[in-house]
Amino acid sequence: MPPGEFELIDRYFRPLDRPGGRRRTDVLLGIGDDAAVLRVPPGQDLVAAIDTLVSGRHFLPDTDPRSIGHRALAVNLSDLAAMGATPAWGLLALTLPAVDEAFLREFAAGFAQLAACHQFALVGGDTTAGPLTVSVQVLGFVPQGQALRRDGGSPGDLVFVSGTPGDAAAGLLLERGAEGGVVAPPEQAAAAQTLRQRFLFPTPRVALGEALRDLASACIDVSDGLAGDAGKLAAMSGCGLRLEADSLPLSAELLQVFGRERAVQLALTGGDDYELCFSLPAARLAELSGAAASGDCAVRCIGVLEAEPGTRLVQAGQPLSLETAGYDHFSPRG
Amino acid sequence: MPPGEFELIDRYFRPLDRPGGRRRTDVLLGIGDDAAVLRVPPGQDLVAAIDTLVSGRHFLPDTDPRSIGHRALAVNLSDLAAMGATPAWGLLALTLPAVDEAFLREFAAGFAQLAACHQFALVGGDTTAGPLTVSVQVLGFVPQGQALRRDGGSPGDLVFVSGTPGDAAAGLLLERGAEGGVVAPPEQAAAAQTLRQRFLFPTPRVALGEALRDLASACIDVSDGLAGDAGKLAAMSGCGLRLEADSLPLSAELLQVFGRERAVQLALTGGDDYELCFSLPAARLAELSGAAASGDCAVRCIGVLEAEPGTRLVQAGQPLSLETAGYDHFSPRG
Repeated sequence: MPPGEFELIDRYFRPLDRPGGRRRTDVLLGIGDDAAVLRVPPGQDLVAAIDTLVSGRHFLPDTDPRSIGHRALAVNLSDLAAMGATPAWGLLALTLPAVDEAFLREFAAGFAQLAACHQFALVGGDTTAGPLTVSVQVLGFVPQGQALRRDGGSPGDLVFVSGTPGDAAAGLLLERGAEGGVVAPPEQAAAAQTLRQRFLFPTPRVALGEALRDLASACIDVSDGLAGDAGKLAAMSGCGLRLEADSLPLSAELLQVFGRERAVQLALTGGDDYELCFSLPAARLAELSGAAASGDCAVRCIGVLEAEPGTRLVQAGQPLSLETAGYDHFSPRG
Repeated sequence: MPPGEFELIDRYFRPLDRPGGRRRTDVLLGIGDDAAVLRVPPGQDLVAAIDTLVSGRHFLPDTDPRSIGHRALAVNLSDLAAMGATPAWGLLALTLPAVDEAFLREFAAGFAQLAACHQFALVGGDTTAGPLTVSVQVLGFVPQGQALRRDGGSPGDLVFVSGTPGDAAAGLLLERGAEGGVVAPPEQAAAAQTLRQRFLFPTPRVALGEALRDLASACIDVSDGLAGDAGKLAAMSGCGLRLEADSLPLSAELLQVFGRERAVQLALTGGDDYELCFSLPAARLAELSGAAASGDCAVRCIGVLEAEPGTRLVQAGQPLSLETAGYDHFSPRG
C-alpha cells in the first residue's frame, strides 16, 4: 500500500496499544517493530486463540464497521473466557479491499471500546490489500494449571448456559430482513432492535469465565449453536448429554418476535451467541450463584451429562429430535 | 463448513502440533479446545508477530501450495529472527475458497517441513470459507531484556545484511515469466531455478538472530526492499544511512540472469528477501564472524549509520539516487 495509507492505518490502530488511554506495563515493545515483546506474569499460563471473520460469511457486507471491530475482538475474547483466562494482548491481521478512512475509524472505535473494558492492548498487526477478512489473535493469562477445558466433565454434572441463547441468531435474521431473513412488524421494533444489537455487539463472558475457574468441570463457548457446542463438551468429556428444551433461558424479545417454537430452535441451533456453556458437579451447585454474580451474568441449568453417548433433547418429558428442532435448517459455518 | 470438511482439515493440521513428530512439553493444551494453553519458560520474554499472505498479492494464484505453507510460516519466523527470538508456537487462520484435499496436504507439508526445523508447534487455528488468505501468528522467546529492536543504532555503527538480497524479487519475476515478468534463456535455466526457489522457499535467519542478541545494536527483517528497510532501521534509531551499492552481496545467479545494474536494483528495492539487516558498533566487529558462523549464514557490511538523517546511496564513490536504482519501479506492498 502507498505510504500515505500506512500512515492512515497507523493513526487509527496505534492508539489501540493503550486500552482506555492506559499503557500496560507488561508490554515491553508494542506496535511498530518487527514483533511485540511481552512479559507473562510469574505463575501464569499463557492462553492463545485466533478467529477470523470473513465478509459475507460472518457479517453482512453492509454491516456497520463498528460492529465488525467489536465482533472481531469479542469472538476471540469469548474463546479466552471459555478457558477461564484474563485477556491481555492481541494482534490484528486486517485485509481490506481499499483503505477507507471512515471504515478504519469506525472499525477501530468498535474494537477500542470493547478492548478498554478488558484492558486489552493491541500490540501488533498486519494490514494487507485484498477481500475484507479480519483475523484477531488474542493472548491471556490463567493461573498455572487452572485453565478450563472442554474435556473435564463427568456423568451427573449439571450443564449450564449463560445469558439468553438464540438472540444473536434472531438478530442476524432481522439484519437480513427481506433478503432471506425476517421483517418484524412495527409494534415489535424495540424487541427487534435489541435482538439485532445482540448479534452486532455480543458480550464475551470474561468475568464469568474467570469466576468459573475453580468451579466448572468443563467449559466451551457457544458460537455454532448451543445443542452442537454442548454436545461437543459432552463428547470431549467422554459423556452424553440430556438437554431440557423447557429449561432454555429464552429472552422476552426472542419470544415476542419469533414465538416459542422458533425461539427454541434458534436457542438450540442458531449460533453467534458467544455465551459460555459449562458443566458443574452437582455437589458444587451452591457455589454457583456467587460465581454468576461476580460474572455479572445470569446462568441457567439446561441439562445434565450422562454416561450414554449422544445428545438427547427432551421437551415436556418427551424426546424431541434435533432435526425437529431445526438443526438441519442452519448449517454450521466454517 | 460441513463436518466432513472439518475432519479433513483436522487430519492435515492436527499433526502440526508435534513438529518433527515430537510434542513440546511447554504446550499444555494444543489444537482442539477453545484456545491453547502454553507455558513460557522463567526468565524469558514473549515475542509475538502476525503476517498475512493474500492470493494474487503475496503469491501468484497458481503457486505450489507447498510454497504457500512454507512462506506463510517463514515470513513470520523472519519477524521473530529480527527480534533475536527463538520460535516456539503459533496459530493459523486459513481462509479457503473450497476445501481441496490436495491443497491442504501440500500446504501442511510445506508448513510442517519448516516448522520441524525450528521445533515450532502449531497450537491452534481457525479455518473459514472465503478468498484464499493465510495469516500465521507466531510466538517465541528471548531472554528477558535481550530482544533486538529497530531503534538501538547509533551514528558510526556499521550496517550489515545477511544472505544475498535481490534473489527473491528476481525469483518472483521469473515465476511471473511472460506475464509481466522475465523469461530466462535456456542456458540460464539452472540459475533461474535457484532464484525461483529463493522466492518460493525463503530461509528465515533464526539462528543468526539468536546469535546477534548480544551483539547487534538494532535489527530489522528485510521484506519490503533492503534500501527501504535499512532506512527504517536508521530512522527509528534517529540516524541517517550511507549505503554502498558496490558492497551489496549479489549472488552469482542474480548477476548471471539479470546483469549487474538490474541486480543492484533488485537487491536494493526488490522485497521478499527475509534476510536480516542489522547495525553493529564498529568496536565489536571482531565478534561478528563467530555470530555469523553460528547463524550459518554469510553477512556483509553494506554501509554505515550517520548522524545526518536520510538515506545516501553511493556507487563507485558517487551519489546514486534511489530513483535511478529503480525504487519507483517497485511499489511497496501492503
